[in-house]
Amino acid sequence: MQLWLRIPLVKTDNDTMDVVNSSNLDDSWEIWNSFRLLCEHHSQLSVALDVLNSLPSANSLGRWFGESVRAAIISTDCFLTNARGYPCLSKRHQKLVSGFFNHSIQIVLSGEPVHSLPRINSDLAANNNDNNVDGVQKHPLRPYLDYVGYLYQRMDPLPEQERFELGYRDFLQSPLQPLMDNLEAQTYETFEKDTMKYIQYQRAICKALQDRVPDDKASSVTTVLMVVGAGRGPLVRASLQAAEETGRKLKVYAVEKNPNAVVTLHSLVKLEGWENIVSIISSDMRYWDAPEKADILVSELLGSFGDNELSPECLDGAQRLLKDDGISIPSSYTSFIQPVTASKLYNDVKSHKDVAHFETAYVVKLHNIARLAPPQPVFTFIHPNRSIDKSNNRYTKLQFGVSSDTGSAMIHGFAGYFDAVLYKEVHLGIEPSTSTPNMFSWFPIFFPLRTPISLHPGSSLEVHFWRCCRPSKVWYEWTVTSPSSSPIHNTNGRSYWVGL
Amino acid sequence: MQLWLRIPLVKTDNDTMDVVNSSNLDDSWEIWNSFRLLCEHHSQLSVALDVLNSLPSANSLGRWFGESVRAAIISTDCFLTNARGYPCLSKRHQKLVSGFFNHSIQIVLSGEPVHSLPRINSDLAANNNDNNVDGVQKHPLRPYLDYVGYLYQRMDPLPEQERFELGYRDFLQSPLQPLMDNLEAQTYETFEKDTMKYIQYQRAICKALQDRVPDDKASSVTTVLMVVGAGRGPLVRASLQAAEETGRKLKVYAVEKNPNAVVTLHSLVKLEGWENIVSIISSDMRYWDAPEKADILVSELLGSFGDNELSPECLDGAQRLLKDDGISIPSSYTSFIQPVTASKLYNDVKSHKDVAHFETAYVVKLHNIARLAPPQPVFTFIHPNRSIDKSNNRYTKLQFGVSSDTGSAMIHGFAGYFDAVLYKEVHLGIEPSTSTPNMFSWFPIFFPLRTPISLHPGSSLEVHFWRCCRPSKVWYEWTVTSPSSSPIHNTNGRSYWVGL
Repeated sequence: MQLWLRIPLVKTDNDTMDVVNSSNLDDSWEIWNSFRLLCEHHSQLSVALDVLNSLPSANSLGRWFGESVRAAIISTDCFLTNARGYPCLSKRHQKLVSGFFNHSIQIVLSGEPVHSLPRINSDLAANNNDNNVDGVQKHPLRPYLDYVGYLYQRMDPLPEQERFELGYRDFLQSPLQPLMDNLEAQTYETFEKDTMKYIQYQRAICKALQDRVPDDKASSVTTVLMVVGAGRGPLVRASLQAAEETGRKLKVYAVEKNPNAVVTLHSLVKLEGWENIVSIISSDMRYWDAPEKADILVSELLGSFGDNELSPECLDGAQRLLKDDGISIPSSYTSFIQPVTASKLYNDVKSHKDVAHFETAYVVKLHNIARLAPPQPVFTFIHPNRSIDKSNNRYTKLQFGVSSDTGSAMIHGFAGYFDAVLYKEVHLGIEPSTSTPNMFSWFPIFFPLRTPISLHPGSSLEVHFWRCCRPSKVWYEWTVTSPSSSPIHNTNGRSYWVGL
Repeated sequence: MQLWLRIPLVKTDNDTMDVVNSSNLDDSWEIWNSFRLLCEHHSQLSVALDVLNSLPSANSLGRWFGESVRAAIISTDCFLTNARGYPCLSKRHQKLVSGFFNHSIQIVLSGEPVHSLPRINSDLAANNNDNNVDGVQKHPLRPYLDYVGYLYQRMDPLPEQERFELGYRDFLQSPLQPLMDNLEAQTYETFEKDTMKYIQYQRAICKALQDRVPDDKASSVTTVLMVVGAGRGPLVRASLQAAEETGRKLKVYAVEKNPNAVVTLHSLVKLEGWENIVSIISSDMRYWDAPEKADILVSELLGSFGDNELSPECLDGAQRLLKDDGISIPSSYTSFIQPVTASKLYNDVKSHKDVAHFETAYVVKLHNIARLAPPQPVFTFIHPNRSIDKSNNRYTKLQFGVSSDTGSAMIHGFAGYFDAVLYKEVHLGIEPSTSTPNMFSWFPIFFPLRTPISLHPGSSLEVHFWRCCRPSKVWYEWTVTSPSSSPIHNTNGRSYWVGL
């Protein structure tokens, strides 16, 4: 059985700070929230929204896209009349309806027809002749339906990448453990197709080569470049193309620990005729005893949350391969989080009925979520690491505020992203405000909360994140201490960790 | 490993309503609360309180008696000086220390001695000669210890009943199911010893007999009295004693469904020579086909929460045995609840690691708890039930406020009680403000909350209780909707119910 709760889309904008006495009646989302809490976030409980002719603020509407909304009931009262007497919707209603389409929310038309249409067969009616043949009476709400259909047809088609990713929407995946496990051939193949990523790498390498070797010495100086974690060779190719593009002479070491990838790498080098330039080293970068030091160290070890696939530990181990004035590409990376409403993700985590799943971070194509505040930076790592404190332990406390016109909101967890500086102004990342377009190697990460937290307008969310390192593993811990304290999640890495 | 968190006993009295920005620093209990939430109410986490020379309000201190406080560290700065130059404590400190004794909280003395004692051997020192023999140096804090020892010795000894109940303190028991299960001989024996209870019943029966039969008809009219649920006969005895006391003529039917109890009842009647007055009926009161109707129906079917052992259902079933103008003893009963801090009970419930135990009510001798607000009535049942709506379903919504000088408080659940009107002004019950003294048949009941709720000063607690009946069972559901909504506990009686 599925239960849909029919709720009017109402929120009055009295920006009261009186948290204690705020009444549910001002904001219908509060009614929903109270009901779903009583029902313990039951997964068979959903919402049917009654859309009225006046709409609350965009921020307040946004909350519903993190909830299980199944239908939007649009009353004929919501419709305006266009110049030809036909029903249409305001710009704000149009935008909302597009949001419903985008989230597969069923549109239901209701109410009495309030538009008396011109008697003469209009263009619109002519276009729908098939409904009118043999004198069959048109449904009285047909003009409204036609208009909604028109809005649907007018939507921009999904870009190819979005179409490809449809099946991954809101589907929780465990993050890769590329250090402990060797990647599958299929995984390499997928990631190698991410052209945009390698274009950015090539741009970064070009700039680094030019900075390293002035134009007048291009033909005399050979730059030693090491690709650490070369996989099946995409960064080797990008490096050689950069050398060609800038006219620099290059000597490449391709270091790779996965013996299966090394086999493919050998074939590639032979096929491309790179034998004189590229040396393949079948070794873990942390333990390889190199014959010479590198000018440039190139790696692609980043996870959705930046350091979560242990790039810092790998690059710290490889730093001895780099000359004192050498360049690391990437030269730094930063993780970001933002609080989100994500009832579907929460219920998926909860369905495992254990604590461990609530203390795990997931890679997920976020879709059915509401982003409640702009992302904030969490941890930054810089390479080569020239600081005295070499520890990769980190701790950050963040404060998030939800804009006052949002109303109360429910936080099911945190969406996580990264942004990396490859070299100087060339960056790469998935943090929404600066994300590299047309890149598909990384979905965001999601850190759930064991008990979702209700945030009232005007109160702030205080979040703590730790990155903890031991000789054999690295893990995150996280908690919330305001508006109320939650348990520390994943203490001692008991539920989720990445092996070294 | 046990971890004791050392916390100063501090709370400033700025009655701010500014919930959002209230700082932890004003109230050290908040630090404890935040820490224990981060540690997920860990059962090995306790408190050592630093007692300072100024004390917060009594209500605010009271909160600590619901927490796991193991030690109270009293600084020598707290001590005043008595007329003879010896250290002593203020009345408020004395009362607090008594509370610590009463809760087996270890007293630790700390700090430098600040009292320069008279050089001449005082009375106190003389009384402690044994510590001073052979010129052994007294410990510099000895006078403080002596004073604390004196406070301990001055405490009133525990009443016999309290001593007997020591082993039951804060020990969760499942409520009896006397309707589904037959009680054990041992259980009858314990309850029969509760003299005070039967004195109250006898007083009630006396008054009912006098109201029923005027003095001038005492020798001519015979009152028919039925004891429904007679057990091993204590109410039969109370009835006969009441008849003797008032000079009324009585005919008694003793109805009992438990065949084991009926055997004992027969022996009693024979032993006491009551054969001509008392008829023993081996039957369930709900199904017995009586030869005549009763003037007075006497029962003792009450549980800790009044109706929780299904007295309403039993007496509804027996009501057809009563004359239209007949009297039921008890004539009504009401349940009560109050919110409590009860970290030990919460942890005991949690240790079962399932939801069912959080959705069960327990009979428990409450001791290590803080009562946060006065009890309020929940459900009332009146007998005989002459109302049109015969349903025993009930629903009550209650609002509790915590007094403003308490500070924030943690609610782990609700303590439940009952009060019964036996007849007119003769009542019987365990609701703390009106409880019948020296009665031991009932411990309170405890309704836990799955997630303890933090209540800030000035905000109110909204609680909902339901009593739900089906042909085969009766159960309670409960939830909190303010300051935030909790799941409805025990929906459909899935975890805890009483069989009919």
